Order: sequence, then C-alpha cells, then structure tokens
Amino acid sequence: MTSSLAAQLTVTTPIDLSAYDSRATTGFEGKKADAAEQLAEMGDELSDLQERLFAGGRSGVSKTRILIVLQGMDTSGKGGIIRHVAGLVDPQGLAISSFKQPTPAELEHDFLWRIRRGLPDPGTIGVFDRSHYEDVLIARVRQLAAPEEIERRYNAINKFEKEFTDSGGVILKCFLHITSEDQKERLAARLDDPTKHWKYNSGDLDERMLWSDYQHAYAVALERCSPEHAPWHVVPSGRKWYRNWAVASLLLDELRNLHLEWPDADYDISVEKARLAGL
Amino acid sequence: MTSSLAAQLTVTTPIDLSAYDSRATTGFEGKKADAAEQLAEMGDELSDLQERLFAGGRSGVSKTRILIVLQGMDTSGKGGIIRHVAGLVDPQGLAISSFKQPTPAELEHDFLWRIRRGLPDPGTIGVFDRSHYEDVLIARVRQLAAPEEIERRYNAINKFEKEFTDSGGVILKCFLHITSEDQKERLAARLDDPTKHWKYNSGDLDERMLWSDYQHAYAVALERCSPEHAPWHVVPSGRKWYRNWAVASLLLDELRNLHLEWPDADYDISVEKARLAGL
Repeated sequence: MTSSLAAQLTVTTPIDLSAYDSRATTGFEGKKADAAEQLAEMGDELSDLQERLFAGGRSGVSKTRILIVLQGMDTSGKGGIIRHVAGLVDPQGLAISSFKQPTPAELEHDFLWRIRRGLPDPGTIGVFDRSHYEDVLIARVRQLAAPEEIERRYNAINKFEKEFTDSGGVILKCFLHITSEDQKERLAARLDDPTKHWKYNSGDLDERMLWSDYQHAYAVALERCSPEHAPWHVVPSGRKWYRNWAVASLLLDELRNLHLEWPDADYDISVEKARLAGL
Repeated sequence: MTSSLAAQLTVTTPIDLSAYDSRATTGFEGKKADAAEQLAEMGDELSDLQERLFAGGRSGVSKTRILIVLQGMDTSGKGGIIRHVAGLVDPQGLAISSFKQPTPAELEHDFLWRIRRGLPDPGTIGVFDRSHYEDVLIARVRQLAAPEEIERRYNAINKFEKEFTDSGGVILKCFLHITSEDQKERLAARLDDPTKHWKYNSGDLDERMLWSDYQHAYAVALERCSPEHAPWHVVPSGRKWYRNWAVASLLLDELRNLHLEWPDADYDISVEKARLAGL
C-alpha cells in the first residue's frame, strides 16, 4: 500500500531544499499526456465535493472551510494553480486573496490583520496567492522588520493557524518548488513572448539576485511552521502539468477526508410540497 | 445577414414579458447536444480574451472592465450562469457579488452604496448575482421604500450605469426569463432531490405568490433602465443549456468587440534579457 500523496509531499526536517528534485513526479502514474485527462476527471469530483462544502456553509450547519496557501518564488506557478486547479470548481465557492506589498494602512496593523480579513467563510475554499509567510520570507531577506519581530512571527503564525483549524478550518499549504535554473528558463520565456510581457517585472530580477537567501528563509519557515494539523507540502513544480495535478490531488484528498454530506432540509418537505402544489 | 444575438435579445418597448417564450432558443444553431460542445469551445476563447482584459488592467494601461448583471426570479439560473459561464474563465479575473437583503449598516446608506463597492476593478469581470435592480423590484413589490424614492431610483440607476460605462466599464444586463410554470417545476424538483434541499427556502413561495407583481416591476425596470449603452437582454431561461449558451455568447461578443491587445512591455526587453543572462 502506497502512502497518500500528502504524506509523500509533506516536508521532513531538517530541510534542505536543494535536495528536492523540482522535476519529480511523485505519486503520478501514467504518462504526461494522461495528466490533463486525470485533472479533468478530478475536476468533476472536486466540483461535486465543493458544492457539498458550500451547501453546508450556506445552510449554517457546518463551519468547515478550506484554505489553500500558495507560496513559491516568482514563476513557480501560484497563478497557474489558481487558473487550472481552483478554476475547476464553482467560482461562487472561492475566495481568492492576493497578498502583495502591504499598504501603509495595512502596515499600521499586526501582520496577521490583513490575513484574517482574507480568511474564507464557512463552506468556502480560500486561496492565498502569497500569504502571511511573506512576513517571514521577504521580511526576513529584506530586513523589513526587526529580527525579534521576525522571530516572534513564527509562533504567531502557528498559533493563528491552530485557531483556524480548531474552528473548523482545513489548511493546505503548498510550497511550489522550482530551481534557480527553472526560474531562469521561465523568465526568459516571458521576455521572449509578447503575450507574457505583462507578467514580467524588472523587480523580479532584484529578488532573483537573493535566491539563496530566499531558499534559506523558506527552509526556516517550513521547518518552524509545519505542525501536524497544518504541514507544508513541497510540490515539485519544475513541470507545470505535474504541479497542477499534484495540488488538485491534494485538494481532492482533503475534500474526500471531510466525508461531506448534503445538509438536511430545515423545513417540512411534505408541507412545502403541498403549499407549492396550490400555487 | 443575421443580427447579433445581443440585438436579438435586447428588450424592446413597450414590454410585455408574457409575450416572451421562455423556451425559445433564439440564435442557437444545432441540436441541444451540440450546446455543451459549443460552450466548451467558447470557453477557450473567453479564457484567452479574459486574460488579455486582465493583463490590461494589471499593467495599468486600460480601465476596461466588464460587469454582468444577473436578475431573474428564483430558480431562473443566476447561480447556474456563474458556475457554468463565469466558471469558464480564470477565477483570478472574476469579482462576484451576491446582493441579498440589505444589512442594517447597508440600509443607512443610499441604495447604490453597497453596489459601488462591488464594482469590478480594471481588467476584471464583475458578476452581480442580483443587483441594484432589487431596489426597484422587491423594494417596489414589498413597498420597502416610499413611492417617490422608488421613482427616484430609476434615474439614479441610469446615471450610475452611465458613469460606469463612461469610465471604461462595459455592462451586460441579463434578465433570465422563466414562466411561473417553469419555476413550479424547478421548485418541485428541488423538493424531490435531497442534494438540492439546501437550495430551497420556504420564503421562496412567499415571493412566488407575488409573481405577477414581480413581472410588472420587472417590466417597468426593464423599460425605464435600458438605454443604448446599457440595454437589458431578455434571456429565455426555460432551457438551462440554452440560457448558459446565450449568456456565454453575449459575453464573448462583448469581449470580442473590445479588440483587446496584449499590453506592451513597460521596460527595455533587451536590457532585461542581458541582465537575466548574467544571473
């Protein structure tokens, strides 16, 4: 019996990101050409389970909600996951939050303030395109906060995520792992393709110059913030088709594990049928 | 030469909704079985054009944005349109707002206050599941505001929509037309299907009792708020597959009419290529 994909991709400590193969296809059986078909098939089940989740939230009978946290270096595919995986379910049941450089107003609050505002409501699947982890990643690499404050944040994150999972939340954290070479290829492809020029920003290269600092900051964050109820998954993302397949599979497994039932009617069905018949 | 679907579905005055066939398949060629395939094909083009729209907004070069306003009686398929039509494009480019009974805080403001907050940003496709029209529909039928206030709102809506289209917005208003018999069948189906019980609310029948009042309120709203830049379309919605096909077609036509181009790079491509090569 093979272990679940989640177990296979869950980060193990101590963490050495350079030991992970970005082009691995862990857990995937079949040929690359099969991945799109498998993804479409998963889409039908994801869509069904998402509707059950949504029904539970809408009916007020369940507080269950899912938060997908996407982190990764530029070009690792956070947007691709939203388009190709989150895009498989009803957009009414999605709450997508993209966390960019904090605004002055956001900076006046604790770093988790804007994050809490983006949390999904019961029945909803939230997707964080970047997240509170930026506050221990770019903030650490670029020294945007004092070392003691960065230090404080790891525990604050663990506490925050625990509150979320204790109150009916399920959290799925995916680090989209690519190598510096993968990124170089993808940035070059963006510069070569007029339909992708808008995705490129010359600031991307400033961040790229700090690659090893970022890898270190990621390793620390993944090591310190990966408790059993909210583990990090290292998703090999050198192959886009595998990355999409893997995150869809992880999400599907989370949804299956919830054993979601359709909510019961909170009205008398026969009474309503009789009323309707008369109208 | 046949006229566009938009022209065929645009409401004409004076309005008699009972004269519209809810099961019409205006403009659709082929058999019912072809509709799903046509919808999937449109999905590819919608997805491409939506990305161009998004790129323009993200790059700051365009203020263009689209607002789809969905109105219709219960079970007419507002949610179905979001799932099956809006669901064809990248959820990152969608902004869905569902307008229910106003909260006490919302009631302290002008009726358009909460509506303005839901308007899509440049590059985004907004979808209103119910809208500011509720303030001249249920508000009129249930006398939730004084007659003079209802009267004032028609012009306020026209002015508001004009501001939106004058500032780069495109508005696509769809009235999902069903008959009282269509609704009866669908409500009965909900009561018969445990996977749909959560969608049913006994308040739905209270509204159903006012069917003719609502039809009248709709006729007035469609007649008074259908200027050339923001016309109402009456979408026959007795057949779900046609309804989805028609709204997707209307949206696709709007996107095509924008002649969207990919934004130019706002950096020197050769400089960036040279920098990247050295990193």
